[in-house]
Amino acid sequence: MPRLCVELPTGTYAVHIGAGILDIELPALLRSHPHEQIVAITNETLQQLYPQRISRSLQSLGARVETIVLADGELQKRLTTVAHIYDQMMHCAATRETVVVAFGGGVVGDIAGFAAATFMRGVPLVQVPTTLLACVDSSIGGKTGVNHALGKNAIGAFHQPLGVVIDRTLWRTLPEREWRAGLAELVKHAILGDRALFDNLLAAEAHRLSSEDPFWDDALTRSCAVKCRIVAADEKEQAQRVLLNFGHTLAHLMETHMGYQSILHGEAVALGMLYAAWVSQRWGVLAEEELRRVRALLEPIMRPLRLPYLDAERFQQLLLRDKKNRAQGLRFVALRAPGEAFVRENVPVRSLWPLFQEFCSAFPQLVQIDSRAQGIPDASPG
Amino acid sequence: MPRLCVELPTGTYAVHIGAGILDIELPALLRSHPHEQIVAITNETLQQLYPQRISRSLQSLGARVETIVLADGELQKRLTTVAHIYDQMMHCAATRETVVVAFGGGVVGDIAGFAAATFMRGVPLVQVPTTLLACVDSSIGGKTGVNHALGKNAIGAFHQPLGVVIDRTLWRTLPEREWRAGLAELVKHAILGDRALFDNLLAAEAHRLSSEDPFWDDALTRSCAVKCRIVAADEKEQAQRVLLNFGHTLAHLMETHMGYQSILHGEAVALGMLYAAWVSQRWGVLAEEELRRVRALLEPIMRPLRLPYLDAERFQQLLLRDKKNRAQGLRFVALRAPGEAFVRENVPVRSLWPLFQEFCSAFPQLVQIDSRAQGIPDASPG
Repeated sequence: MPRLCVELPTGTYAVHIGAGILDIELPALLRSHPHEQIVAITNETLQQLYPQRISRSLQSLGARVETIVLADGELQKRLTTVAHIYDQMMHCAATRETVVVAFGGGVVGDIAGFAAATFMRGVPLVQVPTTLLACVDSSIGGKTGVNHALGKNAIGAFHQPLGVVIDRTLWRTLPEREWRAGLAELVKHAILGDRALFDNLLAAEAHRLSSEDPFWDDALTRSCAVKCRIVAADEKEQAQRVLLNFGHTLAHLMETHMGYQSILHGEAVALGMLYAAWVSQRWGVLAEEELRRVRALLEPIMRPLRLPYLDAERFQQLLLRDKKNRAQGLRFVALRAPGEAFVRENVPVRSLWPLFQEFCSAFPQLVQIDSRAQGIPDASPG
Repeated sequence: MPRLCVELPTGTYAVHIGAGILDIELPALLRSHPHEQIVAITNETLQQLYPQRISRSLQSLGARVETIVLADGELQKRLTTVAHIYDQMMHCAATRETVVVAFGGGVVGDIAGFAAATFMRGVPLVQVPTTLLACVDSSIGGKTGVNHALGKNAIGAFHQPLGVVIDRTLWRTLPEREWRAGLAELVKHAILGDRALFDNLLAAEAHRLSSEDPFWDDALTRSCAVKCRIVAADEKEQAQRVLLNFGHTLAHLMETHMGYQSILHGEAVALGMLYAAWVSQRWGVLAEEELRRVRALLEPIMRPLRLPYLDAERFQQLLLRDKKNRAQGLRFVALRAPGEAFVRENVPVRSLWPLFQEFCSAFPQLVQIDSRAQGIPDASPG
């Protein structure tokens, strides 16, 4: 079974990947770590699909396991949910030796991770992601947090997990749309840092494969390996980690513009990656033929988007609302070739709108902008 | 001007100590750190005493300074206050390059520190403590956090500051009672780790000196040096840092029993230190003559305490509520000699009550327990 490591100055943790490994790897991980109690945090859907899944997995351990069930959805990703977790943890007498197990997708992982980061100044955390997106994206790397009404992930902390257990059999229930959105993040790691994986995905026509195809064991491992490598080199996003934001400049803008309810993060990132590749080609750093390959991989997993009215002013305003961007010029992750992303500094914010207009004209089947303004809702997260 | 350093694996920061140094050291510190904006966090009393003190101190820098004024008191130390700070920071467009300056006592420092630790996954923080207690205790070492209704400091994070500026002239307004409570923490560092400072304090009859006496420059520096040394050796309280809890086993118990409104932390710690020294002598590790010296230093700064009714059961219950304690046996910081504290592991919780009863009989002028139970209030922090 593949096992990756994230090596950090403060310690190393393993990412276990495979089909049906939860009941082996989770107890093994906890057996090797002193703990008094385990608090499993999950959501209503998962609790219905897999009742008390973490408790059952840990039965052999004889551990005291409490389960906290959150309501579903990105709207839960806010401070009051974390306050609710603190209350529950205090009521079940959690201590510094309590281990939190986050069992769910990215939302559960981010919220539970932040609670673990801040309960008693930090308790150990195990991530058990249940969506493809969470597997390749949020479960590895230690970013935790919740949204503020005025900013996505505005409240948070870095808190590296004790370990990550990725069991592919937990995805079976993923709706097709979520699966594709997750695939976009898997593909992201290929485009930004693994040419061989990129070529494999293209050759296998990955979008045609079911989520149960054994192809994914290797692809997932390679994709996670890119993330592990980058996180190990730069835990707190001072340098290389910025590469992981490939496609995110436009993605965050789209999410804020359309509202987090109408577009999935992976969908926004897929569009953002194609845009970044397109911009790279316009800048003369990416060959046209390579752009075609990137497009060939991305287009089949994209969902055509119809954007509410957008003009230059709103576009720039949205760019500047992103916590990563500065008016003086932003950091843009561009592409030299598939597998070779790089950061361009001080890209003028104003230069990106004309490029976006061109981009929309070039891909009318993928993205269209409504031509009339009609009371644009301010679609910040709740 | 004395300058101490806290050397950590993740970086080094300085603790500047002196009289009237704020307007020199604070701008110097920020000049050497890139920032876009400064958010000063203070409380109503300080804002009245020293209106816009941080803004004025930074005028020469030409920096954008926003001030957030919290209501006074330990009751503010809760999650809703932190949520209020997030709101204000979002509204004044704070970014990852915003520096938070905590200007106040321990409560302000802990709350502002936690907000800085978790805003945008952590922004830089400067501590400008304005009470003796905060100078020697909370401003150095990176512990930040707020209380939960069921536990003191139950929500928090480690977040080391960019620097600490200790300006003794800001204490002038301290009420006598607060001054003595702070003195207890200064004395704590002497007792647990600096025999020379211990002897100096005894020889100078420290309790008779006014807070403006130049004696404090050296005493303060030596006391902070003990803290810096211990934090540098053990940032996250895995080992040596436990020594800083000297006196805290009984102190936390007293605070929960009496309510945070009726006893100051320093008062509780002073009693706790005398108790720890007494226990050490009973265990045969501290010479009687040394216990007398510890008593000679502590007694003049202590305030006689009258405790609500307390029996063995309640005493043990309270001990186990402390997040540091375990039923199997607790870690107790004991004393071999002044300047030489050590940790004794697995002290049976049940053994401490009889010792406490003896202790109260030995010092009737310092501590008395009400003899009748009459609806003991549950005095957890709000």
